[in-house]
Amino acid sequence: MALYIIGLGLGDERDVSVKGKELIEMSDVVYLESYTSVLFVSKNTLEEFYKKNIKEVDRNLAEENCEEILKEAINKKVSFLVVGDPLCATTHHDIILRAKKKNINVQVIHNASVMSAIGESGMQLYNFGQTVSIPYFEGNYKPTSFYDKIKVNLDNNFHTLCLLDIKVKERTIENMMKNKNIYEPSRFMTVNEAIEQLLYCEEVLKKNVITDNTRGIAIVRIGSDSQQIVSGSLLALKSVSYNDPLHSLIICAPTLHDVEREYFEMYQHRC
Amino acid sequence: MALYIIGLGLGDERDVSVKGKELIEMSDVVYLESYTSVLFVSKNTLEEFYKKNIKEVDRNLAEENCEEILKEAINKKVSFLVVGDPLCATTHHDIILRAKKKNINVQVIHNASVMSAIGESGMQLYNFGQTVSIPYFEGNYKPTSFYDKIKVNLDNNFHTLCLLDIKVKERTIENMMKNKNIYEPSRFMTVNEAIEQLLYCEEVLKKNVITDNTRGIAIVRIGSDSQQIVSGSLLALKSVSYNDPLHSLIICAPTLHDVEREYFEMYQHRC
Repeated sequence: MALYIIGLGLGDERDVSVKGKELIEMSDVVYLESYTSVLFVSKNTLEEFYKKNIKEVDRNLAEENCEEILKEAINKKVSFLVVGDPLCATTHHDIILRAKKKNINVQVIHNASVMSAIGESGMQLYNFGQTVSIPYFEGNYKPTSFYDKIKVNLDNNFHTLCLLDIKVKERTIENMMKNKNIYEPSRFMTVNEAIEQLLYCEEVLKKNVITDNTRGIAIVRIGSDSQQIVSGSLLALKSVSYNDPLHSLIICAPTLHDVEREYFEMYQHRC
Repeated sequence: MALYIIGLGLGDERDVSVKGKELIEMSDVVYLESYTSVLFVSKNTLEEFYKKNIKEVDRNLAEENCEEILKEAINKKVSFLVVGDPLCATTHHDIILRAKKKNINVQVIHNASVMSAIGESGMQLYNFGQTVSIPYFEGNYKPTSFYDKIKVNLDNNFHTLCLLDIKVKERTIENMMKNKNIYEPSRFMTVNEAIEQLLYCEEVLKKNVITDNTRGIAIVRIGSDSQQIVSGSLLALKSVSYNDPLHSLIICAPTLHDVEREYFEMYQHRC
């Protein structure tokens, strides 16, 4: 019948659009994708507000059991809820392609995403280059491609939005091999951890990307009541104590425009 | 008392968030900024749905009479509605700075923006470089800086989002000099016009940015029921007949990823 891919926005249950809420309320089945981002409220709060039972979808279900969701959408109205905007991350393009191949009617309800909401930092969205993801270093797994991408942006006087790693409902390789659904505790990278990793890259690759003068803006819980925006040199931001995750980090272009400079100063960290 | 800067999203009156709608309903005064973008419904429809009188703000009011709005916000709850996300364009950073300097409580309600909703094209937001604006050429006024910015993006294998010019409630220089509030008819640049101007830049600057092989995606009325997404070479897209504006244009990176290629083919224009 139909698959509604509905963005929930950034903060809580009331950030859904009126249109999105109506579609959820008329749906037969409601899924919540809960592994690429999280809201600052519980599933129960959503269920009460939307007056629906909600099934959480973890990484297993979305990748392996996607076909089941699509099978349901042939005869039923199925809502698939995603935090933020549903198509800002690359993850959900696949389910739409598959649905269209099955001639399922797909409707996308857009919403706020961190990728546009960072306008609140005062840095102009026009002046951002490529967005990068900073993954957790694990043992010898220390990918540094984000470092080179930030260099390209800085060389072109672009800001960089750094999205920080989220580990939700992940299993150890051991538990996966044994087919055990035992999940590791959730981890959300902080701005402090991200800057540590950036400094590590600088130490190893030495391309003068992260220096004493590199400026950044910590974006904490954007779109929520406990939102924080703190600007400063990366070295200063590294030792600030922030509200709980989710965190993101903007690395500022070397030269700021007038309004950008005013915002930067307004948000500046005072020791 | 308070200034609520509320994003309305992209399509119609029901794209506002539940939270945004509640703030509008409890406001004493409601302004609608109507010169940087437009919804696909009339002011009357918004007034009926939000159960409020809405005052339209044109370019004059926002720039010259901003102080009046702020004065009201000292004693009243004032909503300032913006199509899309309120801080994606650079225009509204100024009113927030001024409000904060007056110690007015400012609350921003984010929403979908074309800058994130273009994820629906299948091009991954991570692979976009700097966004550019293409302004209408007028007589001898033919700025070409967008052409060079597109070149930087293509050289780095980034996509480019091109935002196309909108002229709403503009006055001729003659009428401005005479202080006459006579407005010119609204104009919204089409994808066809944008490609004409890109070809002009190529002809003049000859940097091999726009060639027979340059691929693009026309984004038409995104987030509305009459949305169209059409991919093809820029030369093919130039002669397609699209739905009415608003239009935007993506210029694709030279090399597409697998999922991007699948989407590109799905949306391809068939002659």
